[in-house]
Amino acid sequence: MMLLHVTDVDEASWAESFRKTLAPYPVVRRGDDFDPADVRYIFVWKPQADAFDGLTGLEVILSRGAGVDALLQHPRLPDVPIVRFVDEDLSQRMSDYVVAHVTMHHRQYTRFHRDQQARRWSQYYPPAASETTVGIMGMGVLGQDAVRRLKPLGFSLRSWSRTPKAIEGIECFAGDEGFEPFLGGTDVLVNLLPLTPDTTGILNTDTFSKLRRGHFEGGPVVINAARGGHQREADIVKALTDGTLGAASLDVFETEPLPQSSPLWDIENCYITPHIAAISDEKSGVRYFTDIVREHQAGRPLINVVDRSRGY
Amino acid sequence: MMLLHVTDVDEASWAESFRKTLAPYPVVRRGDDFDPADVRYIFVWKPQADAFDGLTGLEVILSRGAGVDALLQHPRLPDVPIVRFVDEDLSQRMSDYVVAHVTMHHRQYTRFHRDQQARRWSQYYPPAASETTVGIMGMGVLGQDAVRRLKPLGFSLRSWSRTPKAIEGIECFAGDEGFEPFLGGTDVLVNLLPLTPDTTGILNTDTFSKLRRGHFEGGPVVINAARGGHQREADIVKALTDGTLGAASLDVFETEPLPQSSPLWDIENCYITPHIAAISDEKSGVRYFTDIVREHQAGRPLINVVDRSRGY
Repeated sequence: MMLLHVTDVDEASWAESFRKTLAPYPVVRRGDDFDPADVRYIFVWKPQADAFDGLTGLEVILSRGAGVDALLQHPRLPDVPIVRFVDEDLSQRMSDYVVAHVTMHHRQYTRFHRDQQARRWSQYYPPAASETTVGIMGMGVLGQDAVRRLKPLGFSLRSWSRTPKAIEGIECFAGDEGFEPFLGGTDVLVNLLPLTPDTTGILNTDTFSKLRRGHFEGGPVVINAARGGHQREADIVKALTDGTLGAASLDVFETEPLPQSSPLWDIENCYITPHIAAISDEKSGVRYFTDIVREHQAGRPLINVVDRSRGY
Repeated sequence: MMLLHVTDVDEASWAESFRKTLAPYPVVRRGDDFDPADVRYIFVWKPQADAFDGLTGLEVILSRGAGVDALLQHPRLPDVPIVRFVDEDLSQRMSDYVVAHVTMHHRQYTRFHRDQQARRWSQYYPPAASETTVGIMGMGVLGQDAVRRLKPLGFSLRSWSRTPKAIEGIECFAGDEGFEPFLGGTDVLVNLLPLTPDTTGILNTDTFSKLRRGHFEGGPVVINAARGGHQREADIVKALTDGTLGAASLDVFETEPLPQSSPLWDIENCYITPHIAAISDEKSGVRYFTDIVREHQAGRPLINVVDRSRGY
């Protein structure tokens, strides 16, 4: 039996879809009449404190989100495998966001917008893409998809990840010792890291001050499409105001929705979107987890299982 | 002998570069002491009325610009071949501009900017790139390069050109009879046409009203990176104001610099840049025309010769 426990999402719609694709396998929701001991799979998003209570026969947790940082904080998380959502459609949407913001900053949107507001005709020719280096933090599925999209555009690319990677045509840095050299040649920093204790608050004053300076018109740029927990917003406000950063694009925030009182709203070179870079699409989610359940029922190994020691 | 006649450009710098690459072949500038009858090649940009006077031995006109619409209007243009600048670097820069503006609009920049100004957290998930159709007018070197950059991003692409083309993976329309069907499926219209009598004013109310409606959030978008003569600015103002268009990105204008009095400056969903989408880079220009001169001197045929009847 599969149990749905998803908050802030149309649970009824997901349940209906899963019932169709998994039939005759039983799919239930909270409030339905079922024995918790019969639940083998639980599909979760923002689970409540009692989400897993009584699920004595649970075999797999299915996470609707690609990031499981919040899930791993759950106080009564059962010790069974967690399968996270890894989805081509989600990667595509995330890359859509990343490419749009990288190219907007590369083409000096802030500068030209200021000029337009002042009715100023001031010709400045942005550098060619190849003269601009985009540094991507996180080389998982999302980071690698971003590379795949940005490369044909001609950008110089470099990556930073926890463990060393080798990706053709891009300069790969890894670990603590690789972080400063990575930042030192980066004009536009894109964060696609998983949120773990190691990466919490990584977008801070110290990081910003190590980005390449004097090369990219207007100053280095930061784009955060991962988690609000990666950023120190007070540091971002300071960096955008004192010129340490030329601009920032933020899709995620320490507190969401971003509080009305946040100074970020009013900073003209801060580009805010309300955590919409990528969504876990219902159609592809149902397809993905239906396959997971079917494969597992057939006795085959699970894929995309979270490593709890790494946190993703 | 090669004569330089370039306005609004650092002619001395170009001359110095050409002298180095063409030596011992003589390179002169206006004002130098030379016999006009000895000039075989003239390198021009915005030539004055007397530019070609006395050049009785002229063999080739070298146009620093990729577009030759203004040059073809010259009242005393000699009847010799015109070679226009076709340059990978220029194509790259033009595509940089096109991709930045297509993706910005695809990701609903205008909507999120309005929300930010109102401190409004309103989640809207932009469609995936594949659900958005970019229609490119003009399938010359620039149009084809734009296709090459936009395709890996996942956009649905279609093209419209004077003569029928077949380009893999994109829907190609051509001629008068293909124009309306082309527009009817286009969400984001990109103009990269040459400016000819046929294409003058093509970005007008009638064209805008035929773009696909009700599909792309906020309304269809127009991006003009070609020539100001392609657009009817009064029509653009009207379309942006009455909702016929959701947004426009304009790099070129009927009069440049765009007059202080233009209403375009103040329209928030109009994105103005001061004719900087792509520049003819001196380094690659010198390399390109040096090759042209050398090949011609060696008796080999010219490339990228303008067809005066087509206008490009």
